[in-house]
Amino acid sequence: MEVSNKQITLKNYVTGFPNESDFEVRITTIPLKVPETTQNAILVKNLYLSCDPYMRDRMSKLEGSYLDSFIPGSPLTGYGVSKVLDSTHPDFNKGDFIWGFTVGWEEYTLITATQSLFKIQHTEEVPLSYYTGILGMPGITAYAGFYEICSPKKGEKVFISAAAGAVGHLVGQFAKLFGCYVVGSVGSREKVDLLKNKFGFDEAFNYKEEEDLNSALKRYFPDGIDIYFENVGGKMLEAVLLNMTRHGRIAVCGMISEYNLEKPEGIQNLSCILTKQIRMEGFAVFDYFPQYAKFLEMILPHIKEGKIDYLEDIAQGLENGPAALVGLFSGRNLGKQLVVVAQD
Amino acid sequence: MEVSNKQITLKNYVTGFPNESDFEVRITTIPLKVPETTQNAILVKNLYLSCDPYMRDRMSKLEGSYLDSFIPGSPLTGYGVSKVLDSTHPDFNKGDFIWGFTVGWEEYTLITATQSLFKIQHTEEVPLSYYTGILGMPGITAYAGFYEICSPKKGEKVFISAAAGAVGHLVGQFAKLFGCYVVGSVGSREKVDLLKNKFGFDEAFNYKEEEDLNSALKRYFPDGIDIYFENVGGKMLEAVLLNMTRHGRIAVCGMISEYNLEKPEGIQNLSCILTKQIRMEGFAVFDYFPQYAKFLEMILPHIKEGKIDYLEDIAQGLENGPAALVGLFSGRNLGKQLVVVAQD
Repeated sequence: MEVSNKQITLKNYVTGFPNESDFEVRITTIPLKVPETTQNAILVKNLYLSCDPYMRDRMSKLEGSYLDSFIPGSPLTGYGVSKVLDSTHPDFNKGDFIWGFTVGWEEYTLITATQSLFKIQHTEEVPLSYYTGILGMPGITAYAGFYEICSPKKGEKVFISAAAGAVGHLVGQFAKLFGCYVVGSVGSREKVDLLKNKFGFDEAFNYKEEEDLNSALKRYFPDGIDIYFENVGGKMLEAVLLNMTRHGRIAVCGMISEYNLEKPEGIQNLSCILTKQIRMEGFAVFDYFPQYAKFLEMILPHIKEGKIDYLEDIAQGLENGPAALVGLFSGRNLGKQLVVVAQD
Repeated sequence: MEVSNKQITLKNYVTGFPNESDFEVRITTIPLKVPETTQNAILVKNLYLSCDPYMRDRMSKLEGSYLDSFIPGSPLTGYGVSKVLDSTHPDFNKGDFIWGFTVGWEEYTLITATQSLFKIQHTEEVPLSYYTGILGMPGITAYAGFYEICSPKKGEKVFISAAAGAVGHLVGQFAKLFGCYVVGSVGSREKVDLLKNKFGFDEAFNYKEEEDLNSALKRYFPDGIDIYFENVGGKMLEAVLLNMTRHGRIAVCGMISEYNLEKPEGIQNLSCILTKQIRMEGFAVFDYFPQYAKFLEMILPHIKEGKIDYLEDIAQGLENGPAALVGLFSGRNLGKQLVVVAQD
């Protein structure tokens, strides 16, 4: 039985900021069964799609990257939550809910590369959509980045950029629970309020209202920054380097300010890495997937006990996916941006 | 009894490249005894002075650095090897040889800050001057930087810049002994020969003869660089970032190309830290002084068995110190640059 399958495709490789017009809605058809000759595959109905900054890279023609480019004319792929409709894979059965990489930006996907999929132990206590965020890739990213890369100590001073984003607002809460002083930078007053009043950050500021980022950081960190959770790159990184303490750590999770530049500007002040013995380390979430079970053990009780707040920014309908995705790069989202394709 | 004491002083803070004319020879006098009221001090006769790139920083007016500026009108200070003439310190006796920080650029120094001094167990097998280099600060720097910061694995591919310098030529030999593939960049053909024929590097190149550093690195590292021992910064760092492997490590020991710039250029390609999950870490040798005894245990047998070659570039006489020091920044030295003040 073939059914209609709405898809979001990339028209062509993108240069500079992506626009909604770089994407196209297309209707095709798909059989709702795994072909009999295809082993270890699943046919899924997609429920929630994750909009993530790293996807900007995949809109470019990549060479020698750990990521693959999107294929122009084909549907986007990424992280998502789906329901298994048919399976020839011993680990997945019809009716299972799964999350992971790589789900298509379409209603139904035949997944043959199943190595980065996780089966969801679904309960009523947490919504399935959380597996695009706090219980999925951004959650493990925040967890690995903060606990593994930042090597935090109680009482240390932590700065987070893009702090109202999917990862940033979790890192801040992890750091507060750990006993750190936490400041976040964001791009609007609304987000400043959110960090201070909802997520319990000690301080927050709107970088767009600061004439001089160095002075802003000195205001909130008179004794320096011990840990910087880096999501933006560029001028913010330059200012942070000047304000790091000796033996400070910079976890490089993203550099969203750089993604849309054709010719990125050079970064000043890198000699601070030497003079202050800073460790700066990039990391990729898939290296930490083996720790997913351990992560869930930590995070689920926090969610159930209300110790961690989580914010979703939900776009309804696949056709609104491109606007939601593009919005990440102008900072339009509050918390985790996701797209609802279907409720179940 | 007062004796004459020749000194090298800094005339004034330096901007840009330092010149011999930034320094002055001055004759003063000094009593050869520690004043009776001064506890825990030693009066030393200086034998060998170490010329080190980090000293450039101290010629500038520093604020908020882990280093102190030199004081214009006062003698330079740094690492050196000296003989104790008088002592009120329980750990040091008349006749002891010491090395460490901070010895004056003068014939005799009264040292009251003795926390970074080491007593030398002198034997005929190794010259005392080695304690300005392979058995002193550059030696522990190479040791800590390679073994602790680079986390090397056998068979990994190692690139070293300023590889004929005091630290670089030791790192390369440590890496070869460890079972790595080792390539160095230097600034002359003579140094290329030295690395390949004396120090056993697998390959070496003269960066001044390369039109494109990226291509040069691709030639020697077709599968990428696992470990970069960073001594220079600037354009070389930019090219290295493009050629690092996933999970590569960059030990930042120096950035000599930046030291003399009034306004350093920004560094491109830093986003490779993210996309390739690179760890880039600055370190300072004094954090590793507690491991000095362990280091000596490793290095002394290597020297005695001829497994490690060590090269000294020796300037005779305190008055030739400024030229030797300034020469570091035009790459004039081959191996460890030191100044002989007296033989014993």
